[in-house]
Amino acid sequence: MTELEALGARARQAARTLAGAGTGQKNRALRAISEALRTHAQDILAANARDCEQAAAGGMPRAMLDRLSLTPQRLSAIADAVLKVEALPDPVGERMERRTLENGLCIDKVRVPLGVVGIIYESRPNVTVDAAVLCLKAGCAAFLRGGSETIGTNIELERVMRGAVQSAGLPESCITLLHDTRRETAAEMMRLRGFIDVLIPRGGAGLIAAVVKNAAVPVIETGTGNCHVYVHEKADPDMACRIIVNAKAQRVSVCNAAETMLVDRAIAPVFLPLAARALREKGVTLRGCEQTCALVPQAVPACEDDWAREFLDYILAVRVVDGMDEALAHIERFSTGHSECIVTEDAQAAERFLRTVDCAAVYHNASTRFTDGEEFGMGAEIGISTQKLHARGPMGLRELCSYKYVVRGSGQTR
Amino acid sequence: MTELEALGARARQAARTLAGAGTGQKNRALRAISEALRTHAQDILAANARDCEQAAAGGMPRAMLDRLSLTPQRLSAIADAVLKVEALPDPVGERMERRTLENGLCIDKVRVPLGVVGIIYESRPNVTVDAAVLCLKAGCAAFLRGGSETIGTNIELERVMRGAVQSAGLPESCITLLHDTRRETAAEMMRLRGFIDVLIPRGGAGLIAAVVKNAAVPVIETGTGNCHVYVHEKADPDMACRIIVNAKAQRVSVCNAAETMLVDRAIAPVFLPLAARALREKGVTLRGCEQTCALVPQAVPACEDDWAREFLDYILAVRVVDGMDEALAHIERFSTGHSECIVTEDAQAAERFLRTVDCAAVYHNASTRFTDGEEFGMGAEIGISTQKLHARGPMGLRELCSYKYVVRGSGQTR
Repeated sequence: MTELEALGARARQAARTLAGAGTGQKNRALRAISEALRTHAQDILAANARDCEQAAAGGMPRAMLDRLSLTPQRLSAIADAVLKVEALPDPVGERMERRTLENGLCIDKVRVPLGVVGIIYESRPNVTVDAAVLCLKAGCAAFLRGGSETIGTNIELERVMRGAVQSAGLPESCITLLHDTRRETAAEMMRLRGFIDVLIPRGGAGLIAAVVKNAAVPVIETGTGNCHVYVHEKADPDMACRIIVNAKAQRVSVCNAAETMLVDRAIAPVFLPLAARALREKGVTLRGCEQTCALVPQAVPACEDDWAREFLDYILAVRVVDGMDEALAHIERFSTGHSECIVTEDAQAAERFLRTVDCAAVYHNASTRFTDGEEFGMGAEIGISTQKLHARGPMGLRELCSYKYVVRGSGQTR
Repeated sequence: MTELEALGARARQAARTLAGAGTGQKNRALRAISEALRTHAQDILAANARDCEQAAAGGMPRAMLDRLSLTPQRLSAIADAVLKVEALPDPVGERMERRTLENGLCIDKVRVPLGVVGIIYESRPNVTVDAAVLCLKAGCAAFLRGGSETIGTNIELERVMRGAVQSAGLPESCITLLHDTRRETAAEMMRLRGFIDVLIPRGGAGLIAAVVKNAAVPVIETGTGNCHVYVHEKADPDMACRIIVNAKAQRVSVCNAAETMLVDRAIAPVFLPLAARALREKGVTLRGCEQTCALVPQAVPACEDDWAREFLDYILAVRVVDGMDEALAHIERFSTGHSECIVTEDAQAAERFLRTVDCAAVYHNASTRFTDGEEFGMGAEIGISTQKLHARGPMGLRELCSYKYVVRGSGQTR
């Protein structure tokens, strides 16, 4: 057994204990974690300061540095978030269906934890806590591999959380962090069949592609969002403006932000100048097709790659289309299956779009920014699935569960 | 684009059309398939006779030959089964949840087809039809790769079914069979990301392991069943006898048949001779642990491998255990996550077993043979999942579906 397999075996054992733990005990562990994060704030912040210093010395750009740095306020918000997870209903043990056969056999479909959930993520240290506590509440052991830039912070967070979990009478291996951040070790983790039940990569498209390529464990792909807002010829121009400004610019670094706007030719001359002005006020640069550039002098010409890019920045690709067919074809070609939106006053056109577009969340007259576990009523989320298997869209506690059939009889045979 | 990718692209296009097709049209296609299987029975049976002849000449054993041969009766049963699928409720479009936010945004969770379903299976030609029609009813395109021994039969079945689908106004690529049965082509199919949404291997443990190892497309593992019946010290010996005889011997070649019996030491002297006699009458040989062999002279000593083997034969491994802890540990070690059973009159012991054992279907006082789509009320099944992601246990039409969130607004932004 390799060192990693030994960690995996302990996580599996912990998951087994956790699967049998009651809601009360899991909640006690969550409260203990929240409290411990506050009690040990100084140690955690000191470790984080060392990580940030080292990263800065290594030449990390300011924006990235900001993502990995913890402040007392941020840490306090993380501790608060743990209590929000505590307050969520426990999905485990819920009876999803019951069926009684003519022979008296009673078949219950009961929600059970997925088991050991592997999470591979990049530098933000809040993921270490968020992922661990969501897994814990769902009765799953968390097996975490974070980025090397925050390894000091993560080790401290793991130490504090494991202590808290143990103080609540649960095994510390409910939470396991890989201290070894070499790529080979991550690759080995992706192949830990029999120990890890599912892998959820959280991060950029490159990370996700690497996990999908190398994993032998089932993977749930998350978070790649090349989201479109399609402004139909029958759109209310003011509403369309508000929606695209919100979808693009309310927060540009997130996966549910819009990256491309498609505009019907019939409405483009009226709408595009209006939208361009509103977007410019928010600091958004347009990369347009030929027609867009003709209507909006400030737009720069888009290249073919721009249609496929997740800018995660104050940049919006804009293309004028010849009606819904062309819009649907463009979305079909470039969508990453996250969130897509149509703005129109034409109910029939809206229904056609809602029916046809194949993605996690499809919108009529609302911003794509709503694709979010909190907004969808799940509470916190572990990620947003862009695949169709198991879970689609925001993944909350229920999506960290499987089910089993519990069959009670009195001697029935076939 | 390779030849296989071109096939994949056509299947994807067909899946898109099928996802928008109504229940009426899908049912028309299913009736047309059922009818065409009868109309073209002679061609199909002739092709099958050629396959069987060739297989026999190649020295295929009689039992395997029987699995691939079609008779008029078998073909008629296959055509009947298509009509049973037609009669099942259409899962597509079903609203699973609705949520209205305070801002008026209405979020529906709606069932949608998974898309293109790849199925890799061995020789039985009924799978070609069963899988194709289940996929069709669930709005999915079927992308099939059967065994080389029945390729002539399968090509004929594909031709007949595609004609029927087309006559109902649906694209023939709703059903695609790989005519090229080389291993390299199967391996390429397992890597057709972007064309195939999920792969379901149907066959022996070797096939499933090969698919899991090579696939770049998400896989659902099915059908490996090392199922246990645990006879608890408080079992009713007669009931336990009936259950083990049924679970082992009613049909030995299926994945929900029992392969190992665990017997509490306290009840073994009374129960084992009784069970051994009843099993012997059905032609079952026992492979026992030391205690078993001491109590049942006809038992042969089991070797360590026997605990992990899916015999699929008139063989049962038997082990005497020191109570529930040892039984649970044995099951945890050797279970393939399919079906496990406890026989006991002690309700508390039963509940502990039902809660603790982590598998698709866990039984109290009933035969493991009930783990079956038909018995569970799903109608026909595409396979029995032994993994926890997406679907567990029998997979019917709903399990061939995903969902999407359909969000209707009036200009909402965040």
